[in-house]
Amino acid sequence: MPYLHADDDRLLFVPLGGCGEIGMNLNLYGTRGRWIMVDCGMSFAGDEAPGVELIFPDTQFIEQESDALLALVVTHGHEDHIGAIPYLWPYLKCPIYATEFTAGLIRDKLEEEGLLDEVPLTVVSPQSELTLGPFSIRYQPLAHSIAEGHGLIIETPKGPIFHTGDWKLDDRPLIGPISPAEALTQLGEKGTLALVGDSTNIFNASESGSEAAVRESLLELISGMTGRVVLTTFASNVARLETAGYIAKKTGREIALVGRSMNRIYRVAREAGYLADFPPIIDERDVGYLPRERVMILCTGCQGEPRAALSRIARGDHKELSLTAGDHIVFSSKIIPGNEKTLGGLFNTLVERGFDVVTEKDHFIHVSGHPGRSELSQMMAWTKPSVVIPVHGEIRHLTRHAEFARKEGIAHTIVPKNGDVIKISEDGAVKVDSVPSGRLALDGQEIVDIDAPSIAERKRLLFNGVVSASVRLSSAGKLTSAPEVRFLGLPRADNPSLESALAGAVETHLDRQGKSVRADDARLEDAVRIAIRRYARGQVGKNPQVMVHIQRDKKGQQG
Amino acid sequence: MPYLHADDDRLLFVPLGGCGEIGMNLNLYGTRGRWIMVDCGMSFAGDEAPGVELIFPDTQFIEQESDALLALVVTHGHEDHIGAIPYLWPYLKCPIYATEFTAGLIRDKLEEEGLLDEVPLTVVSPQSELTLGPFSIRYQPLAHSIAEGHGLIIETPKGPIFHTGDWKLDDRPLIGPISPAEALTQLGEKGTLALVGDSTNIFNASESGSEAAVRESLLELISGMTGRVVLTTFASNVARLETAGYIAKKTGREIALVGRSMNRIYRVAREAGYLADFPPIIDERDVGYLPRERVMILCTGCQGEPRAALSRIARGDHKELSLTAGDHIVFSSKIIPGNEKTLGGLFNTLVERGFDVVTEKDHFIHVSGHPGRSELSQMMAWTKPSVVIPVHGEIRHLTRHAEFARKEGIAHTIVPKNGDVIKISEDGAVKVDSVPSGRLALDGQEIVDIDAPSIAERKRLLFNGVVSASVRLSSAGKLTSAPEVRFLGLPRADNPSLESALAGAVETHLDRQGKSVRADDARLEDAVRIAIRRYARGQVGKNPQVMVHIQRDKKGQQG
Repeated sequence: MPYLHADDDRLLFVPLGGCGEIGMNLNLYGTRGRWIMVDCGMSFAGDEAPGVELIFPDTQFIEQESDALLALVVTHGHEDHIGAIPYLWPYLKCPIYATEFTAGLIRDKLEEEGLLDEVPLTVVSPQSELTLGPFSIRYQPLAHSIAEGHGLIIETPKGPIFHTGDWKLDDRPLIGPISPAEALTQLGEKGTLALVGDSTNIFNASESGSEAAVRESLLELISGMTGRVVLTTFASNVARLETAGYIAKKTGREIALVGRSMNRIYRVAREAGYLADFPPIIDERDVGYLPRERVMILCTGCQGEPRAALSRIARGDHKELSLTAGDHIVFSSKIIPGNEKTLGGLFNTLVERGFDVVTEKDHFIHVSGHPGRSELSQMMAWTKPSVVIPVHGEIRHLTRHAEFARKEGIAHTIVPKNGDVIKISEDGAVKVDSVPSGRLALDGQEIVDIDAPSIAERKRLLFNGVVSASVRLSSAGKLTSAPEVRFLGLPRADNPSLESALAGAVETHLDRQGKSVRADDARLEDAVRIAIRRYARGQVGKNPQVMVHIQRDKKGQQG
Repeated sequence: MPYLHADDDRLLFVPLGGCGEIGMNLNLYGTRGRWIMVDCGMSFAGDEAPGVELIFPDTQFIEQESDALLALVVTHGHEDHIGAIPYLWPYLKCPIYATEFTAGLIRDKLEEEGLLDEVPLTVVSPQSELTLGPFSIRYQPLAHSIAEGHGLIIETPKGPIFHTGDWKLDDRPLIGPISPAEALTQLGEKGTLALVGDSTNIFNASESGSEAAVRESLLELISGMTGRVVLTTFASNVARLETAGYIAKKTGREIALVGRSMNRIYRVAREAGYLADFPPIIDERDVGYLPRERVMILCTGCQGEPRAALSRIARGDHKELSLTAGDHIVFSSKIIPGNEKTLGGLFNTLVERGFDVVTEKDHFIHVSGHPGRSELSQMMAWTKPSVVIPVHGEIRHLTRHAEFARKEGIAHTIVPKNGDVIKISEDGAVKVDSVPSGRLALDGQEIVDIDAPSIAERKRLLFNGVVSASVRLSSAGKLTSAPEVRFLGLPRADNPSLESALAGAVETHLDRQGKSVRADDARLEDAVRIAIRRYARGQVGKNPQVMVHIQRDKKGQQG
């Protein structure tokens, strides 16, 4: 029995990801018994899920509606918009639409997961109109920190919605069309029902700045550099890659591309027709043969990812590349919140080895891909929406975005949460229901709930360590040999006496137990657990988890 | 046999903490067979030591020299300058000198650890001169983000050293003397041998700003606020506390102090003669009876510490205080690097509950306590040192500070590392040796090396979980019962079949082993470990640690 009936003409908006976090964007629009999904992104796990790499939105709601799901429409190719596709598509099995470059990135992911032949992936052009049941969609090019950023103009029976995706304004974007002013002004004149958009930079008053300005400033900086130049940036920023090639040419340096994703995205970008003027690329193995002032290395790892090229170069364990004191490491990137300590550590390693480190704090060499308040204001002025729905942000971002929209004279706003069912009409946006939502974690090879026991247990292990005890008793419940204890993660782990001390504590405690406890494995386990925790808390100040093995001899056996 | 002989007239500087990190400052000066220690700070553990709260410098070098250690001289009362005293003093047993307020904070710590009667703690006044063997020391008041910040003018046989401690320039500090210009100019005219100083803010070009300006801006902000005002800041910033009291009076609000350290530091400050004009404090239990616009709550937790007052208020589980939507939470503090995610989470909780959150990003309500480059430049101009030795920073801070000093025309600089033995003379500072140094961690109740097995094991547990297996064999080495397996932290931990599957994998693998393995407990353990890891890697994508219990029946027993 479907959630949305064919005769239900309400226009519903249901975010399942991205409303409550920056990352894992996944939004649903529904009416007249049909749904479309906009983006299917992932997020990276933090301390809330130790030992977990990737986080996905929980799609159980739309899985149940999958017969009514017409398509996944993708705005652009960043991981927080496409990263969950290979993991969640098997539960959705819907057609996917994206523009050429974005489709290339998705295709790579599907190939890795062996899904390429299964998934119906259609390349659309911004000129074409995509009709999906009650919805008809046009891709509106917008500048962003990746090639082929798009907003979606979604025509619905209730009126047009502009879903911005991630965007900024850039009159010199280097790649892609210049200004959406005309198209969006037209949209505004017809009257936009709702503007659903990016809240990432709501705390920035000023505009994000232009890729062309970054190019000029980087050229000026690198022109003055002797020694090798290592430039690191987000590989998906094709305009920045083009800038690197441009600067290499201008400064008489040969350019090498280092790092898997850098080479992958370069290839995909070329296939999509970008980077046509990029200078010839030299093999990283040849870098060593060139004079230092003739080399530029464009590499991954601008967030300090330990396995990425830059971190390996910094540690001096990259198999092909080694640098010399005086070489320059230029971070043409931002420090993503949460990565400050990792990056600080990388900066220290680089400085200690005598490299010159330049970051956006020292020089103007990066611009954001998200709109500051001045750009948000311009967008509202163009599109003149009746309703503004902030997405892609934590609660504080969404709340501030909604406040800002009201200050800008927007009649109706709402602060959505993942799982909210929001009815959009001329009268505004109202929450009418809420459906299951949440976060899934890729734990090893398993997709589990973020609150799964495996994750909760590891958090406790992290603080208190673990003890295992093996206890052997006669059928009468008497110890037939001394308890045996092993542990991990307790201080003095290098001191064997703690093991015997814990074993002694178990023996003493069990000796005090009566028949009824000795006869009952569950109660015996508790007794062993209590003995070990008491001792550990008292003697080393830790409260470890305990795993207990109980073995009972059969009648007639003696220890 | 002492490291430094009575007839060795070299002037040595040996940092054991703070040169390689911001935090845990501990510096030694030695000459003619005598040492003095400046500060004894702690640091907070990050991901490098999961489950650990506090980090201390490893003092083994000076412990061996403790007969020659004349005193610990403390510059000011921040944790990164006094926090390790109660933990390390028992290994040092030296007299401690500090000014009154700082001594009050140290006394509190010693009392908590039951050391108060043992430790010779002497209160010194900035006017007095402290003579310690070959050294004579004067406290030079400097503005900082705590009451009684001081640099130390250390007269040595080779000439005067100015050890800045943590400092800033503030012509309106609200508390403490106004400008060190005259004293430091005099010092410079005599000729300072070495300036040893704070590198924390070397990446800031501009000056840190004045407490008085913060007061004016906070007053203007809070005057416009209806509803309750919760002001959070670093409790040790007595000037900021005084500002809170001043604003409460001006805006007709009653003030309550909430949080243990807030009340503790208020008490210590009053005992030291500060906060004399502070308005009467109301009991937090009475806050609820006052009109909201008549309340100011001054509380701890500005870094999002989960157990601090503000976090408990935010979660709504503070036993006395509850807020109402529309109340204001003002963070008069900085976001300490590494705390961005925790604080972001706290901001979200507060905003979600309808509170108005104001941080230094929204309004000018905080200034740093550390010198920007303009202040460092002024300091060098006053003191005219032959040598500049940057301390209190990570390698990138120290390196940049040394570069900056050279640009400012300083003849000699050096970038010290913890454990370096640096000889200071008119000809410069040279590393002549290095001594043992490192980081200690308070793990539970034990002080262990930062690389201790307990910590390394917990890091592995965090990612891969743990399995324990109990195997029982006949004396001939045949399994006498099915292996038993328990695990924690593996995905599908809620699915019992993984336990039996792992047990099955162990049984199958052991069946394949020959006599020699079955006869050898160590090799059997390895076999069990291999069987479990292979299965876990293959089936759930984790590589757990394994604890094995082997029990052998005595001859004549049968399973």
